[in-house]
Amino acid sequence: MKPDSRRVIADLKELKALTSDEHGGAQRVAWGPVWRKARDWFQGKLRDELGLTCERDGAGNLWASLPGTSKDSLVIGSHLDSVPSGGWLDGCLGVVAGLEVLRRLKAQGTPPVTVRLVDWADEEGARFGRSLAGSAASAGTLDATKELAHLKDRNGVSLPDAMKENGVPLEGMATAHAYFKAQRPKAYLELHIEQGPVLEDLKKPAAVVLGTMGVERHSLRFVGQAAHSGAAPIHLRKDAFLAACEFALGCRDISVRHSGRSPKTRVVATCGVVKVEPNFVTAVPGVTEISIDLRALDGRVLQKMLKEARRVATQAAKRHHVTVEWSPLLHITPRPFDATLMGFVRESLGDVMKGRVPEIPSGPLHDASEMAGVVPTAMLFAQSSPGISHTRLEDTPLPALDVSIRAFLLAVDRTLVHLAR
Amino acid sequence: MKPDSRRVIADLKELKALTSDEHGGAQRVAWGPVWRKARDWFQGKLRDELGLTCERDGAGNLWASLPGTSKDSLVIGSHLDSVPSGGWLDGCLGVVAGLEVLRRLKAQGTPPVTVRLVDWADEEGARFGRSLAGSAASAGTLDATKELAHLKDRNGVSLPDAMKENGVPLEGMATAHAYFKAQRPKAYLELHIEQGPVLEDLKKPAAVVLGTMGVERHSLRFVGQAAHSGAAPIHLRKDAFLAACEFALGCRDISVRHSGRSPKTRVVATCGVVKVEPNFVTAVPGVTEISIDLRALDGRVLQKMLKEARRVATQAAKRHHVTVEWSPLLHITPRPFDATLMGFVRESLGDVMKGRVPEIPSGPLHDASEMAGVVPTAMLFAQSSPGISHTRLEDTPLPALDVSIRAFLLAVDRTLVHLAR
Repeated sequence: MKPDSRRVIADLKELKALTSDEHGGAQRVAWGPVWRKARDWFQGKLRDELGLTCERDGAGNLWASLPGTSKDSLVIGSHLDSVPSGGWLDGCLGVVAGLEVLRRLKAQGTPPVTVRLVDWADEEGARFGRSLAGSAASAGTLDATKELAHLKDRNGVSLPDAMKENGVPLEGMATAHAYFKAQRPKAYLELHIEQGPVLEDLKKPAAVVLGTMGVERHSLRFVGQAAHSGAAPIHLRKDAFLAACEFALGCRDISVRHSGRSPKTRVVATCGVVKVEPNFVTAVPGVTEISIDLRALDGRVLQKMLKEARRVATQAAKRHHVTVEWSPLLHITPRPFDATLMGFVRESLGDVMKGRVPEIPSGPLHDASEMAGVVPTAMLFAQSSPGISHTRLEDTPLPALDVSIRAFLLAVDRTLVHLAR
Repeated sequence: MKPDSRRVIADLKELKALTSDEHGGAQRVAWGPVWRKARDWFQGKLRDELGLTCERDGAGNLWASLPGTSKDSLVIGSHLDSVPSGGWLDGCLGVVAGLEVLRRLKAQGTPPVTVRLVDWADEEGARFGRSLAGSAASAGTLDATKELAHLKDRNGVSLPDAMKENGVPLEGMATAHAYFKAQRPKAYLELHIEQGPVLEDLKKPAAVVLGTMGVERHSLRFVGQAAHSGAAPIHLRKDAFLAACEFALGCRDISVRHSGRSPKTRVVATCGVVKVEPNFVTAVPGVTEISIDLRALDGRVLQKMLKEARRVATQAAKRHHVTVEWSPLLHITPRPFDATLMGFVRESLGDVMKGRVPEIPSGPLHDASEMAGVVPTAMLFAQSSPGISHTRLEDTPLPALDVSIRAFLLAVDRTLVHLAR
């Protein structure tokens, strides 16, 4: 049966019409009414077209199963939830493509292993700030009481209350991991849009994802001495902002040096938050706070980058006669994907696209990052154009959508053959 | 009659006790009750010790005159007003030293020209934001209706109302210039604390001031494209903050290059305000606003610095694929002081201090900046230690205070001899 993207694209358009506002932005924020509407629509499809009933685990993840010869399982997943006014494909592409997987397999008879499609709950963390909640619960890396119980949205509604409104008590989240393990998962596959400009720049419709980058996120505080812009001569200043400038430019250099020339090895460094005190036109900045977010797929490279960034900060501080202190904000382990499964994705992309198949790391995290810790995992990226994220303008050209969906269906076929061995 | 600083220092301590709060900060904010108290004290001294009555001009400046053989006049001035919780010497040093000038001259008989001591009103602009209001009115460079009528303090009180409370109607300000010209001023002398770290660094008690620097103050807006810190590879970014960093460091280099090695030629460049958007840890900055404040005593150098800063901004913007726009905030003309009067200050300092007499430009403006536009002007700086400004911690060591006061009295003597010719 030749893989076909038409039903998937039609479904995606249907979902878009159902869950977007008048400006075309997706409004499927987790735990809210539009998200529930999307899930109802999804469950209706499974029921009406496949006769399948969904199960909901303790974390609110929605599971549909197509029983196979073996109770071992291939898990296919992504998320229906979106950020407010988000793109029409972010997350739901993978879920809706999974629906097509089940359709195809059911039409072909009984698959060699059980195929399970999951719609992860609250991937975005858009309302309460904690992303990957559902997949982390399944992977056993989430301590709900510690990490979620205290979270509130902008209106003061607590996450436990919002979950309860959806029939998902916080106390039940701990059961999601056992539920997941009981499914005997042997592989996890995910199709997602890139949400970045790399594939558009490479003029490629899709790519093998090498893994999700690790993150070292820190806040630095440079402290010098505020002084009057006229009275303080340059050589006697302790300008905290100039030290921060050298640090920011130095971190850019670090990331360029470690990226090399291939998209495969790229790493990134970003100074996103900058706060200067006293922040007057006539005041030499006495204090500058600046954030650094370093990302790399190779954990050793990430640690090298951090070490070099520390050196750059120390040198910059010394040169400008200021001090610098680091406060850690976030540490995420790199999640390289499974070589065998990546091979299937590569071969499948080779079947449906021309030229070399690109392989790129993902800077942003995905549910696949959580899965990679507990089961062999691979991902396929569809090109984004424009390559931006979390806006209704985010899009994927239809030819790229077609290529990525068809390659994903083939990658599922190859994985099933592999798991049947 | 040998110049003596003792009475001046005693008077300064008396004024400090009268007008400081419990933490020792001066509270003589213009148009307020403590300022009025300071002026009453000042007028009491003039009356009781010298039998002189003050006149107030249309701008609220307070004038005391010691008639001379000629009606041509030497003007000596500074300001009794302070910022809230300011230093004990900022401004009042020059006024109280002027009192000693009158005492000395009166004791010696009739001076060859009329000597006029002025306490300028609202030098600081601490409450309403417009500094040098009184001296600018006298110099004829202030359009009160345009520049002052709309000003309000933090509590919503308007400047015209605050002035009226002091018996100074806004409409009368325009008369101050004619009042000033009618005095036939031939020279202006001012003693002030440095409020910067230069003399402390040079280990010198006092200095000839070469003039007050011109100012080119602009706001720059670098605009690129916000992007996700993980998804956007470095080479595809349009990072507005990194462009601003290159600009800030480039402006520092410009100022170092033009400063040379002598304190006489020093210039400064300061980026004091920095605002980054969207200012998230995971966002490549799409917009960065940054201020630049360039100062130099030599107007041609100042224009060269501005030209070079524009080039640096354009190059930085190009390198980071962003745009940059400039908005002018302030332009102040450099005010080099009078060579003959500076010579008298130099000789007088040479009489009372050891070693080379330093000559430095002033980065901050002073009432002397306004005077320099209309009358030959010179200033003498007393060392500040610590070299900071507008805080109660600002101070001058007693030996430096002594040297600067004595030299100032001698400089007045030399100026009078010169004017008598």
